[in-house]
Amino acid sequence: MSDTPKSIPRISGNNFQPEIIKARQDFITAETGTSVPHLSATTIDPSTLKGNVENPIGAAQIPIGLAGPLLMNGEHAKGHFYVPMATTEGTLVASYSRGMRILSQIGGPKTTIIERYMQRAPVFHCEDARKARGLGEWLRANFASIKAAAETTTSVGKLSHIEEYGVSRMWYTRFNFTTGDAAGQNMCGKAADAACRWIMKNLPADLGKITYTLSGAIDTDKKHSHLNTLHSRGARVVVEAVLPRDLIKSMTRAETRDMYRARQVSMLGGMLAGTTNNGVHAANGIASLFLATGQDEANVAESQAGLTYVELLENDDLYWSLTLPSIIAATYGGGTGLATQRECLEIMGCYGSGKVEKFIEILAGTVLAGEISLSAAVVANEWVESHDKHGRNRP
Amino acid sequence: MSDTPKSIPRISGNNFQPEIIKARQDFITAETGTSVPHLSATTIDPSTLKGNVENPIGAAQIPIGLAGPLLMNGEHAKGHFYVPMATTEGTLVASYSRGMRILSQIGGPKTTIIERYMQRAPVFHCEDARKARGLGEWLRANFASIKAAAETTTSVGKLSHIEEYGVSRMWYTRFNFTTGDAAGQNMCGKAADAACRWIMKNLPADLGKITYTLSGAIDTDKKHSHLNTLHSRGARVVVEAVLPRDLIKSMTRAETRDMYRARQVSMLGGMLAGTTNNGVHAANGIASLFLATGQDEANVAESQAGLTYVELLENDDLYWSLTLPSIIAATYGGGTGLATQRECLEIMGCYGSGKVEKFIEILAGTVLAGEISLSAAVVANEWVESHDKHGRNRP
Amino acid sequence: MSDTPKSIPRISGNNFQPEIIKARQDFITAETGTSVPHLSATTIDPSTLKGNVENPIGAAQIPIGLAGPLLMNGEHAKGHFYVPMATTEGTLVASYSRGMRILSQIGGPKTTIIERYMQRAPVFHCEDARKARGLGEWLRANFASIKAAAETTTSVGKLSHIEEYGVSRMWYTRFNFTTGDAAGQNMCGKAADAACRWIMKNLPADLGKITYTLSGAIDTDKKHSHLNTLHSRGARVVVEAVLPRDLIKSMTRAETRDMYRARQVSMLGGMLAGTTNNGVHAANGIASLFLATGQDEANVAESQAGLTYVELLENDDLYWSLTLPSIIAATYGGGTGLATQRECLEIMGCYGSGKVEKFIEILAGTVLAGEISLSAAVVANEWVESHDKHGRNRP
Amino acid sequence: MSDTPKSIPRISGNNFQPEIIKARQDFITAETGTSVPHLSATTIDPSTLKGNVENPIGAAQIPIGLAGPLLMNGEHAKGHFYVPMATTEGTLVASYSRGMRILSQIGGPKTTIIERYMQRAPVFHCEDARKARGLGEWLRANFASIKAAAETTTSVGKLSHIEEYGVSRMWYTRFNFTTGDAAGQNMCGKAADAACRWIMKNLPADLGKITYTLSGAIDTDKKHSHLNTLHSRGARVVVEAVLPRDLIKSMTRAETRDMYRARQVSMLGGMLAGTTNNGVHAANGIASLFLATGQDEANVAESQAGLTYVELLENDDLYWSLTLPSIIAATYGGGTGLATQRECLEIMGCYGSGKVEKFIEILAGTVLAGEISLSAAVVANEWVESHDKHGRNRP
Repeated sequence: MSDTPKSIPRISGNNFQPEIIKARQDFITAETGTSVPHLSATTIDPSTLKGNVENPIGAAQIPIGLAGPLLMNGEHAKGHFYVPMATTEGTLVASYSRGMRILSQIGGPKTTIIERYMQRAPVFHCEDARKARGLGEWLRANFASIKAAAETTTSVGKLSHIEEYGVSRMWYTRFNFTTGDAAGQNMCGKAADAACRWIMKNLPADLGKITYTLSGAIDTDKKHSHLNTLHSRGARVVVEAVLPRDLIKSMTRAETRDMYRARQVSMLGGMLAGTTNNGVHAANGIASLFLATGQDEANVAESQAGLTYVELLENDDLYWSLTLPSIIAATYGGGTGLATQRECLEIMGCYGSGKVEKFIEILAGTVLAGEISLSAAVVANEWVESHDKHGRNRP
Repeated sequence: MSDTPKSIPRISGNNFQPEIIKARQDFITAETGTSVPHLSATTIDPSTLKGNVENPIGAAQIPIGLAGPLLMNGEHAKGHFYVPMATTEGTLVASYSRGMRILSQIGGPKTTIIERYMQRAPVFHCEDARKARGLGEWLRANFASIKAAAETTTSVGKLSHIEEYGVSRMWYTRFNFTTGDAAGQNMCGKAADAACRWIMKNLPADLGKITYTLSGAIDTDKKHSHLNTLHSRGARVVVEAVLPRDLIKSMTRAETRDMYRARQVSMLGGMLAGTTNNGVHAANGIASLFLATGQDEANVAESQAGLTYVELLENDDLYWSLTLPSIIAATYGGGTGLATQRECLEIMGCYGSGKVEKFIEILAGTVLAGEISLSAAVVANEWVESHDKHGRNRP
Repeated sequence: MSDTPKSIPRISGNNFQPEIIKARQDFITAETGTSVPHLSATTIDPSTLKGNVENPIGAAQIPIGLAGPLLMNGEHAKGHFYVPMATTEGTLVASYSRGMRILSQIGGPKTTIIERYMQRAPVFHCEDARKARGLGEWLRANFASIKAAAETTTSVGKLSHIEEYGVSRMWYTRFNFTTGDAAGQNMCGKAADAACRWIMKNLPADLGKITYTLSGAIDTDKKHSHLNTLHSRGARVVVEAVLPRDLIKSMTRAETRDMYRARQVSMLGGMLAGTTNNGVHAANGIASLFLATGQDEANVAESQAGLTYVELLENDDLYWSLTLPSIIAATYGGGTGLATQRECLEIMGCYGSGKVEKFIEILAGTVLAGEISLSAAVVANEWVESHDKHGRNRP
Repeated sequence: MSDTPKSIPRISGNNFQPEIIKARQDFITAETGTSVPHLSATTIDPSTLKGNVENPIGAAQIPIGLAGPLLMNGEHAKGHFYVPMATTEGTLVASYSRGMRILSQIGGPKTTIIERYMQRAPVFHCEDARKARGLGEWLRANFASIKAAAETTTSVGKLSHIEEYGVSRMWYTRFNFTTGDAAGQNMCGKAADAACRWIMKNLPADLGKITYTLSGAIDTDKKHSHLNTLHSRGARVVVEAVLPRDLIKSMTRAETRDMYRARQVSMLGGMLAGTTNNGVHAANGIASLFLATGQDEANVAESQAGLTYVELLENDDLYWSLTLPSIIAATYGGGTGLATQRECLEIMGCYGSGKVEKFIEILAGTVLAGEISLSAAVVANEWVESHDKHGRNRP
């Protein structure tokens, strides 16, 4: 590193022209001694980068493996799908594929989206708790106007409902919007801000002096919260399957009874640890599909949460369900339209408008496949061995 | 989707040859009607894929922007660094860069790695709680032998200590290993398994019948837990800075007093929501650096957690600290050696052995830059506007 | 203990007659060698015991100290009150009294009851998650009938609203009732059961087979939950005060700045520990008032939770607020009508109908007094000393 | 309430003389119009009140019912016990008694105390995180001296170990003491304070300026925390039993299979709600025994927490366990020596030195009895009915 560091090359106007990207690549080599032939080898049209990144220097290449086919029994996703998973973790694609084979043999995982909203959470600062409580009453009485004000900023987003929580002399709210095929964080930010400005203008004098902050942190953006587990963020989706004992035994060497007991001990362990997900490794499937399809990777923070519930049936078949309360996904906008990301969505027939529920269902089905496959591997004592086989160079 | 889905092409022996990768690309087009020119355009040497992915079909291209320079005041990272961030979220690189400029002007963020271990958490099933308690005593008395058994499987990993928690008739343990420059999940899995096998062989008869499961879920792999906040997973790193009032005002238009008050309200909001991170958006910085450098993206689930603590000093300067208890990172092994990932590590002088602490410190400094920049933007009412400017096509 | 234990004396008909109580006291002496003159010395009219206890043998005597006067600035509690506190912890009454003197000098704590409901939480077991989601829709569409069915069992309780949470193929609900001056757990249990029976009878066939359990555990009875922090259980009450710097200094020797800083460090500590209350010792005031006034002591489990939020004002005065989200209290029914319990309620003018909000406000004001007094003592280094002075015989 | 409130009568010297107690009783009547014959009727020797209460005005009388006999299979509690429970909740004693009958028929609950410590949690404020980390190293290196300094203040308490957690530039510690038969909060406070004073005097200069606060809130006194669930507070005790299917059926009309399934749904509900106890109503048994025996009622806040784990065995018997991680109890000091409290301890042979483990085991066995009885009642649909029968006057 040089002692007097130089600024990264930028030009006024358009920092996405090939020339300035090249200048930055050269700058890296000059300043750090690192040549970047692979970073530079991207096929992304630079003109598509604006709105996705600043100071672009190229692209990361993340290996993608193809898993499947996965038969889906969703409301939006029906039939067989091939699932592109971006990862650098050996074993992952192989393990998810095994789970997909199991699920496909029994008609596919059943998926149900319970609700889907994106949130922005303004907090109002009042003179005292009584004024705050009064504000809450006023917000409920004026919901229609607040909704109208919010929706002036977007043709897609619709304000569904406002959660309210009184603490101290603050009134914490959580605005819930439907957002079409977009994830919608920015859409909701703008709409909530417009709503707040309307509120500020129209507050009756007897509520006293009130100010607001656009986020009082209970959204809870880019982090998990128990509030998400209860009231969702993005989509709340349930995926279910009944796993026949004999099928599991023949395909994984695991006994469903053993898998069940391991589940119980893990659920208790999860409660002991205070975990955000009492399942196995949902984050693996979610992160790899997010990466492949242009979702915001930071949302793995929220989307990793889940509640697994299993039952051992009379005949030793295993009912397995996973409730994912905060899957944040899009099939339009953000990174979804970039070069490889769009191809991956198209492989699953999920690019563009009207596809987001389908994509979320495939994601949920994929996650369940991974839960079952790894759970069986642990019980059958194949966990360490399979990583030895597939992940040899990973310490 | 076809009704009778075909299996994904594989060959016996080597599924990483260019021919079979090409066959899978053609298969995708045939089966789904999707051509994948961009996925196919990867420059990754297929022979390097083994151990990172199965059934490869190409690579995702994720835009990378260059942030910095960031002056670091670490124990391992000293001097200026340019930071490659992979993302599809507009505004992110620009915002982090602004924070880096602020931090660089005051000598850089001070970083301290408190501890760093990787965990695997076997659970032992005993006849009753008294036997379980007895097992705990026996484990402590035989730590040296257990450690020796674990370390037969690895030249790098060292067993540091074993946490123990008695619940019901189970004895939950959490083996803590140092893992060199690797993240070390698999290394720890193998070593803990070897330790457990030794334990099973050597248990005294008076402890009764005991079995074990290699993970009782309190590791807690690919998910956050409160246990991580307390006892760390991967690195526990603190990053600190004192932000001068006038500097903040001139560079962001925000008053430190307002930033401080917003912090207080957000910390309360975080407690209300039951959040895993009372800061702003650590996951953004973490995910983008993880992606660029070949870390396991699913570990965003754990690494997103954090505790922010700020103080408004007498002179209105702002002391800001962030404690990240579970940063899982590597500079060797896994995805770090892949084409673009290695280049990004090299840009920061962080590729290979003896570099992981340096990388973790740069990561922590980067995260702090993002916290400060966004916090100032929210207070200065520039949040919505800046997303409008930089993220125009993102809904 | 004898080897062949005898049954506790009971008679058919009335186990509350003085004779059978006496027989049990003699039985204790005969079987355990313990004479119980103090247990026997109760002045409770045995005929009032039915419904409060079975197998009565007498009464515990818990010392009561009188704290106050406490000036209240509530909506229901206005003016000065003397507060009877039952406790065996030395220092407690003295410390709370000191806090009351401080609060009384500044016009009294301001109290605001945000909401007050009692809950019962039936869970419905459905064939799959889609049926469960459908049930939710049906419940919302049939709320009026469900409410009517619930209210057939009680002249006091009114069903306000039903929270709903979908997990797996279960539909967890939380029925929220207003309960007049009673705490209302049993009232809500009966009403919710009646509602569930109506639901079972009237469910449309297309929702499939559905069964229910009267409590799916999210009520959450006799235990704290994060759900309570968010959605309250019993009363959600906020108590606030602005503490002048000079007053605090002269009455406690503590500087408000030091108290503020200690609060910040404690709030962070609370977040680190994962605590249910980021304040000081609310459970002390709550338990002692619960005991004195015939509340259900087990509800300390729920009522102990709280969120403290403080601000250091420009002039170094300290704004202090405490939000108690789950105060379960009654001024009618249960133990409130027993001999000493009724006297204690009457001392505060809180016995009988229409008094429960007043009582809750006095409770909240009392709790705040204790928070301030102990916080000041810790900062002024008087904590250990004052326990030495007042609590000499307590190890 | 009068407008100009009078001070509560006090005299210099001894506020526990009968005359001044009588003066306060008269004062109450004069000021509030309430006569207090029952409060006044206490048989407690006023000279024993000092150290337990200030400004005494009499005593609360809480009904006590006798439950049992309960056969115990503990390490310290063996044989049959009659258990005095103080409560105002109808049904409680009857329900616990039923559970005790069940448990006694199968040899009694097996109890195991895993560990028992009391905590005080000083936090150290350092110049930066590196100094804080250095302090941690120094504390570990000087443990013997710190222990010696702490133990100068007490002949009973022994410092066992110090937990350490680094956050920001603070070093949070949690001193763990053994405390003999006392609960020991004050003992630990004094000892930890002495240790901190020694630390302040002996710190090496290179650690910079360090101050401390005696409690950084992670003790966590009078409130639950996840830290308690992991690392206990007071006693961590496990209670277990195997419930034969036929016995349960004949004594409760419930099927063990139904009880098991209800448990699963409740455990999931508990995880959904974010509860501190995934069992049924441990706080009931704990609060009533605490009250009867002079424990600190406010500690119900901590002691209510628990982890239930059940297994349905091959023969449909039910293995049931409950882990209570934070039972704070004493058989010496505090309120245990008061008139009725001592009698109740004596009934169980638990008064005085060397008895605290015995008492904790009986408490744990009692709690389990209540868990089983209520669980069976819920499944057998007798819950609402039994409250109707036993608790008629309770709304």
